[in-house]
Amino acid sequence: MAKQKSYRVGFDLGGTKMMAAVFDADFEITGRRRRKTKGQQGAEAGLERIVQTIEQALDEAGVEAAQLAGIGVGSPGPLDLNRGVMLDLPNVGWRDVPLRDTLQKHFGCPVAVANDVDTGLFGEYRFGAAKGARCAVGVFPGTGIGGGCVYEGRLMRGAMLSCMEIGHMNVVPDGQLCGCGRRGCLETVASRLAIASAAAAAAYRGEAPHLFEKAGADLTRIRSGALADAMAAGDEAVERIVRNAVEWLGAAMANVVNLLTPDVIVLGGGLVEAMPDLFVDGVRTVLDERVMPSFVGSYEVRAAALGDDATVRGAAALAAETA
Amino acid sequence: MAKQKSYRVGFDLGGTKMMAAVFDADFEITGRRRRKTKGQQGAEAGLERIVQTIEQALDEAGVEAAQLAGIGVGSPGPLDLNRGVMLDLPNVGWRDVPLRDTLQKHFGCPVAVANDVDTGLFGEYRFGAAKGARCAVGVFPGTGIGGGCVYEGRLMRGAMLSCMEIGHMNVVPDGQLCGCGRRGCLETVASRLAIASAAAAAAYRGEAPHLFEKAGADLTRIRSGALADAMAAGDEAVERIVRNAVEWLGAAMANVVNLLTPDVIVLGGGLVEAMPDLFVDGVRTVLDERVMPSFVGSYEVRAAALGDDATVRGAAALAAETA
Repeated sequence: MAKQKSYRVGFDLGGTKMMAAVFDADFEITGRRRRKTKGQQGAEAGLERIVQTIEQALDEAGVEAAQLAGIGVGSPGPLDLNRGVMLDLPNVGWRDVPLRDTLQKHFGCPVAVANDVDTGLFGEYRFGAAKGARCAVGVFPGTGIGGGCVYEGRLMRGAMLSCMEIGHMNVVPDGQLCGCGRRGCLETVASRLAIASAAAAAAYRGEAPHLFEKAGADLTRIRSGALADAMAAGDEAVERIVRNAVEWLGAAMANVVNLLTPDVIVLGGGLVEAMPDLFVDGVRTVLDERVMPSFVGSYEVRAAALGDDATVRGAAALAAETA
Repeated sequence: MAKQKSYRVGFDLGGTKMMAAVFDADFEITGRRRRKTKGQQGAEAGLERIVQTIEQALDEAGVEAAQLAGIGVGSPGPLDLNRGVMLDLPNVGWRDVPLRDTLQKHFGCPVAVANDVDTGLFGEYRFGAAKGARCAVGVFPGTGIGGGCVYEGRLMRGAMLSCMEIGHMNVVPDGQLCGCGRRGCLETVASRLAIASAAAAAAYRGEAPHLFEKAGADLTRIRSGALADAMAAGDEAVERIVRNAVEWLGAAMANVVNLLTPDVIVLGGGLVEAMPDLFVDGVRTVLDERVMPSFVGSYEVRAAALGDDATVRGAAALAAETA
């Protein structure tokens, strides 16, 4: 008799790390495996590592491929959602990587591929901070600013690409150059990288002594924890910089609320994890001041609840719905 | 034998006019009736006029109420979509008008009530400029600026109110006061009323002689046709004012594209009807310059195609899906 196909794999493909988790029918994790992505070894080697990582997680869970009902993958970079192809992995040079077909062929089960921001938000919608929301909007300030929307149970998407590019909403007319090629995108003033850049300049000018002591003026060292520590130690310039970014974030989100009237707004990423109250209270305050008056209070603002597991959990749940 | 319930009524409730149209199973109009709203006579008299207007349209079509499969109503002002109640009819003072229950009781068929902008867009989606779009966004500059979105076949909405308040996106930080109570909303710079106000000032200053001759500096006389005529007659100041508004409209829509990546953007209303090329080409040009580069060209911009019938057709189609 065939074994029941009741397990699913959620996979989180990151630029530096990857993680596979095996879920039973109740979406409890029964095995997991983490490895480095080593993207510079090329896409073919990368696909092999992905397959191996899933196999190792299955081994740990004592689950065979034949028992898999589906695999969900959250991937960075632009994806062709219709073909499950990773078009580009930033900073690594992977191009046109056939994620879905490779995994489908190897494991013999349906595979769903989605943007990692979307899988993370879907995880929060199914199991975390946005559980049961009619309309959940997620915004995740990191190197850039990712955004997503689950509307009446389904992830919103574009015709081929993902949508909800909150980070590329124009907020500063003729503002700073953005990595996307435009000017004045929200990312240029409110991403972790924008905050770190401003904080590095403050440290360089001698206005943020604790930050300078801890991380110098080096963007590779000014991570979320270093910013939070510098604020806690009394670097007021750092706090002003973060609060300024939160103002921009709230201003952009006010326009998102005017369009989509989400009932839950989820803020996530390392920066929000390091200072959840500042972000959650700050964004809510700006929204209350700026959204169309009839929408004031129609939303809750919450910090993401699932941490690093959001993407694998969301990817597995997405596989259950679409793969 | 009972007659087949294969007819539907679409109803367009406006601040000054109302229209009922009877549709057969193929959504062809078999009867219609227009009347003045006479809102100042009060909500109770208004409901009576609505009922009578529908009855007269049914008479004209030779259809009995027992043959109705449903009625769809497009209504201005904020609605409680869950109860089909008109919360407020601007400038008239109707409050908490139970549109849905009244019509359901009188005609004995299901009734769907939606915002008139949404019913108009739904009409364009089913029968007009956005036919078959995966994601259609509509924007209708009038006294204010209405917006709507049909995503994968369904009108997007809020928990109770309609959403897609494109007109109340903030585009000018600390800009002019808006009717909603905030500052710098798109409506304050790109609605027909904003354009008419600026054109009136130009006329007053002597910069728009043709407009002044035709309509003075009187906002009640500076309608879409007067603006178009003044431009055609050579009032360059009026053209500059309209083009400036189109720029703002395009800038706001660029952010909507970054969020929702519609494949079709429908521009409608009297101003767009009076100068479709200026609006359609103008908005497309701004979008191509401002949306995230990977989204350039992923949309078509089109003028609404159904004119005054968009709302009754969309309302009837909505009744077929939801009532």
